Amino acid sequence: MKIDICCDMGESFGSFRVGIDDEVVKFISSANIACGFHGGDPMVIDKTVKISKEHHVAVGAHPGFPDLLGFGRRNMDLTQQEINNYVIYQIGALKVFAEVNGIALQHVKAHGALYNMAAVNETVALSVAEAIASVDPNLICVGMANTAMQRAAEKVGLRFACEVFADRNINPDGTLVSRKLPNAMIYDHEVACARVLRMIKEGVVEAIDGSLLPVRVDTICVHGDNLEAVKFAQTIKTALEENGVEVTPMGTFL
Amino acid sequence: MKIDICCDMGESFGSFRVGIDDEVVKFISSANIACGFHGGDPMVIDKTVKISKEHHVAVGAHPGFPDLLGFGRRNMDLTQQEINNYVIYQIGALKVFAEVNGIALQHVKAHGALYNMAAVNETVALSVAEAIASVDPNLICVGMANTAMQRAAEKVGLRFACEVFADRNINPDGTLVSRKLPNAMIYDHEVACARVLRMIKEGVVEAIDGSLLPVRVDTICVHGDNLEAVKFAQTIKTALEENGVEVTPMGTFL
Amino acid sequence: MKIDICCDMGESFGSFRVGIDDEVVKFISSANIACGFHGGDPMVIDKTVKISKEHHVAVGAHPGFPDLLGFGRRNMDLTQQEINNYVIYQIGALKVFAEVNGIALQHVKAHGALYNMAAVNETVALSVAEAIASVDPNLICVGMANTAMQRAAEKVGLRFACEVFADRNINPDGTLVSRKLPNAMIYDHEVACARVLRMIKEGVVEAIDGSLLPVRVDTICVHGDNLEAVKFAQTIKTALEENGVEVTPMGTFL
Amino acid sequence: MKIDICCDMGESFGSFRVGIDDEVVKFISSANIACGFHGGDPMVIDKTVKISKEHHVAVGAHPGFPDLLGFGRRNMDLTQQEINNYVIYQIGALKVFAEVNGIALQHVKAHGALYNMAAVNETVALSVAEAIASVDPNLICVGMANTAMQRAAEKVGLRFACEVFADRNINPDGTLVSRKLPNAMIYDHEVACARVLRMIKEGVVEAIDGSLLPVRVDTICVHGDNLEAVKFAQTIKTALEENGVEVTPMGTFL
Repeated sequence: MKIDICCDMGESFGSFRVGIDDEVVKFISSANIACGFHGGDPMVIDKTVKISKEHHVAVGAHPGFPDLLGFGRRNMDLTQQEINNYVIYQIGALKVFAEVNGIALQHVKAHGALYNMAAVNETVALSVAEAIASVDPNLICVGMANTAMQRAAEKVGLRFACEVFADRNINPDGTLVSRKLPNAMIYDHEVACARVLRMIKEGVVEAIDGSLLPVRVDTICVHGDNLEAVKFAQTIKTALEENGVEVTPMGTFL
Repeated sequence: MKIDICCDMGESFGSFRVGIDDEVVKFISSANIACGFHGGDPMVIDKTVKISKEHHVAVGAHPGFPDLLGFGRRNMDLTQQEINNYVIYQIGALKVFAEVNGIALQHVKAHGALYNMAAVNETVALSVAEAIASVDPNLICVGMANTAMQRAAEKVGLRFACEVFADRNINPDGTLVSRKLPNAMIYDHEVACARVLRMIKEGVVEAIDGSLLPVRVDTICVHGDNLEAVKFAQTIKTALEENGVEVTPMGTFL
Repeated sequence: MKIDICCDMGESFGSFRVGIDDEVVKFISSANIACGFHGGDPMVIDKTVKISKEHHVAVGAHPGFPDLLGFGRRNMDLTQQEINNYVIYQIGALKVFAEVNGIALQHVKAHGALYNMAAVNETVALSVAEAIASVDPNLICVGMANTAMQRAAEKVGLRFACEVFADRNINPDGTLVSRKLPNAMIYDHEVACARVLRMIKEGVVEAIDGSLLPVRVDTICVHGDNLEAVKFAQTIKTALEENGVEVTPMGTFL
Repeated sequence: MKIDICCDMGESFGSFRVGIDDEVVKFISSANIACGFHGGDPMVIDKTVKISKEHHVAVGAHPGFPDLLGFGRRNMDLTQQEINNYVIYQIGALKVFAEVNGIALQHVKAHGALYNMAAVNETVALSVAEAIASVDPNLICVGMANTAMQRAAEKVGLRFACEVFADRNINPDGTLVSRKLPNAMIYDHEVACARVLRMIKEGVVEAIDGSLLPVRVDTICVHGDNLEAVKFAQTIKTALEENGVEVTPMGTFL
């Protein structure tokens, strides 16, 4: 039994530091690396690729909207062609640093508002998927299961990695409980670990109304924002390994 | 006898249009394409690569300082590592569009202040040259002859293309006459063509004091700013071909 | 009978030149000056304020979304507070150049996507109106008649200037015919002038179905993109003056 | 006996958080607020002005180079006119938020590389000073004593506030010991407090070679980067007050 643990990384910009990548990198198997639009810059990308390689963590591009001020979290009304080219540009920027450092780009995961729009909007999703496929059809597309992003990835022939968030509650329809609601987050590490293990071993997850939903998990998204988050990542990795689940880059089993 | 004609292209940014690339592309053999820092954006890059391919024009990256407001023409005091990574990032962004469009990246030419600094500053030049070599040692480095840029390119094992400006006068020491002086430019197309032909055929150029300097020419830089500039490009191309010089991408003969 | 003619100006950015402001400024009475977000920069603002002053043209701020790449023409999903502060910032930047040059800021007109969103979205409109009023309740708010922008301006106690576009056709419901449709624009200068005169003298405009709509006109928007546009501006100004209508800044009669 | 304590604030940008302004604001009398070029954005400016007002802290503009990626810390080769207009723009942006919040702008202090260049380059210094004076001749200019900045400020008739850094050692010639050297910083809070008190009471400071230099102090610069820095600010403020020195905005005594 194999699973990937991924984390959004390399989101610092110049002197503006975000996250403690040096720590969380120890407990993950794949890194989603910002490409310079919503966060990240050439120095940060280079450093993030290097620490990923050092820890045998596979690297992926994490393209976002050209909105540094909004950290890529604000919806923008772009054309298909704009999204397509913005994603190609960002993949190219990340890919070259992977190559210069002697490793291969493994995957692409849209960031923030682009991730959310691609989950529900078929046109946006297709723009992203086609961008990925045009650069390299062997790249894995990462997104939420049963979304427009998954359909688009499969339509263009990309491998798709289903991502789950270890610390988020789920509605009966499979969507994430909104962060605006009090029960959006799962703060109890033990509860979260048990949920993740159940997803992997039984293929189900309990929604907030107690109902069980079928779920496919390829990669578990953790965070590196602070020490508490990193500790959570470590706890999950340990729990998985103690339960006979191998934590390994998604590219090794998809 | 072969020669390349190149032009800085793809410098538009969003709605801000610069140059008439659609016209000048007809009279050149290599395009130096802006990468998004001093000018250019993913939409513009994609379009510029496509029209270059259509006209059998080879493409190169034209990386500059991260100073859109100053069009990359203002000196910035960056570290070696910053220059190195900024150049790698920009080459990667251009390279991916070349690949997506089914052509190969041929060369890299620094832009504006980076071009000028790399001509006189060994450290800057080496940062640029090492960036190019780290991405692909087969890429050609373009710059002025007998500069720090040429020395750095040769030091890291890159092929170097000597660039001359058809419309600029030259000091007795081989440097360009400053644009601040009245005799910086050569406005007479016939004079400029004769100079270029002499450089190619005899390997010499006349400086402003009448002395003859030895010169190696691999690529002649023309401009696409306006119709007059494009007409000049056409005149030069015609003059070369009428004199038995083949205009062809630098990669075919270097 | 008095009317204002306004033009969006100062939209150049660094080396990227937009419009021929030096020409169109001769035929207008108010300038809507970009503030550095969608276009414009401190050098451009200073120059635009100076040529406006020189031609006795009143100046206003023309704030837009923080999207230079999209020229402020792409919808962005911002909070009320973000819009409010973004507009205050931009008014402040323009206002200081007016003051340094010894003239007063007359008005504020939202740009592009912000203009369009403020026309139909009460929340966006109120964010803009409150921003203007908080800086100076004597500033005039410019927008389309009978829109959310007008209602918001009046709600917060601002004077409102109704803007019409001399070269655009109008639907029977008073909205502009979409630029995507073939009959969006009026290319015949005589027809456009006759329409404008009728609006001012009779208070009506003919929609594309031939019906007559009541209309209030305070300012006529012209363009300075190219020589043809500037000639159009001149034609309108001349036609108005020949018909006894005084062209004068909106602040003199509102 | 009166003294000002100032801190660079409002340097966050969107989601990128810098400093703990909410804490350090309690122990200072003047805030140098970033204006959006090297850091800061309209939301951050508004918040920073509000918390400053709440704590009776006077506000000033802290303009920097248009280099967000380099946090305004990299030298840029700008023209006099560019520096002049960039500074005017940034003062205007800050000034409008002060006015909207019902307080007056007290001072202007250049940031980072602009601060350092203005200390040694008469032309740069004059560009900054003239920008300040053109906006409002009553604004105070803040900088290091005996520098080009002080001379320029006095030349254009501005009040000048001499700034010292409580935690920095000084060379025998009065300049700061470079951060590249091991003895640049003073980590011992008691030593730093004693130095500051001596500067204020005796008008002298001890250089690293033990020699005593005459010094004028109007404002002491502290930092809000982390809890340790804030604690240092608190220690200094307490030490001053216990020694009969009143901590109050520079505008009340200059």
